[in-house]
Amino acid sequence: MANLTHLDASGAAHMVDVGGKAVTTREAVATGHIAMSAQALSAIRDGAVAKGDVFAVARIAGIQAAKKTSELIPLCHPLPLTRIAIDLAFTETGVTATATAATDGKTGVEMEALTAVNITLLTIYDMAKAVDKGMIIEGIRLLSKKGGKSGDWQAA
Amino acid sequence: MANLTHLDASGAAHMVDVGGKAVTTREAVATGHIAMSAQALSAIRDGAVAKGDVFAVARIAGIQAAKKTSELIPLCHPLPLTRIAIDLAFTETGVTATATAATDGKTGVEMEALTAVNITLLTIYDMAKAVDKGMIIEGIRLLSKKGGKSGDWQAA
Amino acid sequence: MANLTHLDASGAAHMVDVGGKAVTTREAVATGHIAMSAQALSAIRDGAVAKGDVFAVARIAGIQAAKKTSELIPLCHPLPLTRIAIDLAFTETGVTATATAATDGKTGVEMEALTAVNITLLTIYDMAKAVDKGMIIEGIRLLSKKGGKSGDWQAA
Amino acid sequence: MANLTHLDASGAAHMVDVGGKAVTTREAVATGHIAMSAQALSAIRDGAVAKGDVFAVARIAGIQAAKKTSELIPLCHPLPLTRIAIDLAFTETGVTATATAATDGKTGVEMEALTAVNITLLTIYDMAKAVDKGMIIEGIRLLSKKGGKSGDWQAA
Amino acid sequence: MANLTHLDASGAAHMVDVGGKAVTTREAVATGHIAMSAQALSAIRDGAVAKGDVFAVARIAGIQAAKKTSELIPLCHPLPLTRIAIDLAFTETGVTATATAATDGKTGVEMEALTAVNITLLTIYDMAKAVDKGMIIEGIRLLSKKGGKSGDWQAA
Amino acid sequence: MANLTHLDASGAAHMVDVGGKAVTTREAVATGHIAMSAQALSAIRDGAVAKGDVFAVARIAGIQAAKKTSELIPLCHPLPLTRIAIDLAFTETGVTATATAATDGKTGVEMEALTAVNITLLTIYDMAKAVDKGMIIEGIRLLSKKGGKSGDWQAA
Repeated sequence: MANLTHLDASGAAHMVDVGGKAVTTREAVATGHIAMSAQALSAIRDGAVAKGDVFAVARIAGIQAAKKTSELIPLCHPLPLTRIAIDLAFTETGVTATATAATDGKTGVEMEALTAVNITLLTIYDMAKAVDKGMIIEGIRLLSKKGGKSGDWQAA
Repeated sequence: MANLTHLDASGAAHMVDVGGKAVTTREAVATGHIAMSAQALSAIRDGAVAKGDVFAVARIAGIQAAKKTSELIPLCHPLPLTRIAIDLAFTETGVTATATAATDGKTGVEMEALTAVNITLLTIYDMAKAVDKGMIIEGIRLLSKKGGKSGDWQAA
Repeated sequence: MANLTHLDASGAAHMVDVGGKAVTTREAVATGHIAMSAQALSAIRDGAVAKGDVFAVARIAGIQAAKKTSELIPLCHPLPLTRIAIDLAFTETGVTATATAATDGKTGVEMEALTAVNITLLTIYDMAKAVDKGMIIEGIRLLSKKGGKSGDWQAA
Repeated sequence: MANLTHLDASGAAHMVDVGGKAVTTREAVATGHIAMSAQALSAIRDGAVAKGDVFAVARIAGIQAAKKTSELIPLCHPLPLTRIAIDLAFTETGVTATATAATDGKTGVEMEALTAVNITLLTIYDMAKAVDKGMIIEGIRLLSKKGGKSGDWQAA
Repeated sequence: MANLTHLDASGAAHMVDVGGKAVTTREAVATGHIAMSAQALSAIRDGAVAKGDVFAVARIAGIQAAKKTSELIPLCHPLPLTRIAIDLAFTETGVTATATAATDGKTGVEMEALTAVNITLLTIYDMAKAVDKGMIIEGIRLLSKKGGKSGDWQAA
Repeated sequence: MANLTHLDASGAAHMVDVGGKAVTTREAVATGHIAMSAQALSAIRDGAVAKGDVFAVARIAGIQAAKKTSELIPLCHPLPLTRIAIDLAFTETGVTATATAATDGKTGVEMEALTAVNITLLTIYDMAKAVDKGMIIEGIRLLSKKGGKSGDWQAA
């Protein structure tokens, strides 16, 4: 039967013991999308293409958030990230963010990649919200993970 | 034409001047959903209902993240939040998080409400990821905002 | 009957709404003691008196912790502290820390003063732990508070 | 003669060099108690037993504080915690918190366990302070440590 | 005679009481320069002009650091910044950063503007250090301040 | 030709992959100076010599900032510092700060040493600014680095 590893036998939350796990190279890729009005999309495209800072701000926000993951997600272990990169691409209705995180550690970096995607997309929301308050962040999910005892995983 | 207020005339990002704006009571409500497998949902439901800590952990993560918004979203102003509450409810396919943030300040609290929703849902992901890595976070959006010069706004 | 204001009707934790409360000047004083072996006490006394940095390090730790209170105590509101001072005094068996915190805000600063005392004493523990691991932190409590709707309070 | 390792020959505080120390598995257990009025105790018991969130909030606060130890205690080294668990139990006059921290690192985790206990108890204070401002935090001390060059230690 | 306001009569550091001071609009402008080899300057110029992200990264670092000032400078009061903007310009030997900070508060924002300049220049150092380790940060100083009891000030 | 390693082929900033690099002992030494009026210098000297806390506050600020480097400099990797020490010395016109940082890690600690110097000097500025607003921070640079693939480096 399915169990939540973050809860002990009595149901109390704890940061699970990873002391006995091996240090291996781990990588995770996550993605997500922000959908917006044509007007907001054109403002962002303008800012990103003609002016420069828009995507850089969003990427930096995502990178810095990835490093804060264990501070944001209460039961995450602190991890020495060895890499974090965020890719942004326009779609017909908005922007897709894809984050790759890696570490040599005892637990995976799925949460780091997902946190980077979330904060990257929220930062784009923040920059375009004067134009469109109705933007929707959607499809945030893990694409793949590598390394660790549970092995590799690929989204269906 | 639509402009991004976070960029100055040369395209450089800055934290816009809100010094001249009035201090008013502001409130924002945001929501989002995490969809998961039946097995993960039953594990979460079990943890939340029978054991207690699951929803509490997610709520606390969201509350603490709301207070960190200006640290996470680079161009957000620091705001003295006067209230933050997070509501969690089961759906047939997962969990919906709804966050209400309020302040008496010079700028709105949309980003605080949205950040709370994001981190709350990521924390649920973290707790259930041993059961289901394919969960999807979706439909993160602003429901309403009150206060400030631009007035009240309600999602369509 | 006694109720916990940090829980809503359903028992969920939230950061209570202080939006409607008046901004008043608030002050709180808290204290606590660390008891140690004669050997540790003499090392600390030596370090504090002859060398200088010991008490300064503890005071700075307490001051910086007070500013982090809302980050450490999940349901605390962020508060713009207008003053924080920490007084350290030797006793026959250790060191007493007394912290005074003040703000002009909508909620009290009891937690800020108490957090400052805790972290100040833990920092002394840290500096003396190579000499004595058996030190005990004790008697941490609020001495007084002023301001706010509930009025002034003095420890018995 | 007893010396404070955190001070150099001139009395200046520094973060001591642990570069030459071996990476070993280290564990520390710390405890502490908060004493309160019967009325506050019954409110906490009510909140913890009937409603759920009270102990979860305190535990999460302690876990997150443990991860912030090197930020709070100025001369502590940053450490990749591999485990942190907090146990809460009612006594006749209040609540006892016991924290277990572990790492594979070059220095011990005593301060992490002690910081977790402190912030857990302060969070309980925060939740019950509307009922009883006279609560006292007491008996915070290390129970045991394992690992490292100085070997195992057990409180008397 | 000159006194350090951050020390009390006994020489102990404290965060001075600003509770009685009026809330006024305050602004500060600070500047600084990083000098580098021709090779590093051309790499930065290339990155900034042709590619976009270099200056954006440095600006975001400075903006986020300004918001962290009271966390970094121990005796600084937390301040709700209403504006922060960072201007970067090439010189013949490197890059000049100029930061403008503003608040409506009880103390000045000189430290916020100076902190922004420092971290902006350090971030440029970080990005160019693979090309030139001998870069020098110099001339960091306040250019002007406005508001508050001590009135306006202009660098000579 | 010189390239910025922090930018990928398209010019986007990322945290470069250090996963394949060896863990070696690394050390860096950085320095800087703050020049001030005779009046400010005498106030600082007074505070440092007669009273004690001035230099301790500055040193602690520098030590704590070094531990926050990866939070402040967006593309820096988190590093487990094994040592940080800050040396302060009076010159005829001000104070020189020299910081030594060390780690056993996959990247160097130059930024940690430089960040420590910057924040140490800013903290001295903060303590003396009531006496002299015209102080200038200057000559911040790396003195030496050891360890890592690129080998040892010494300032000319």
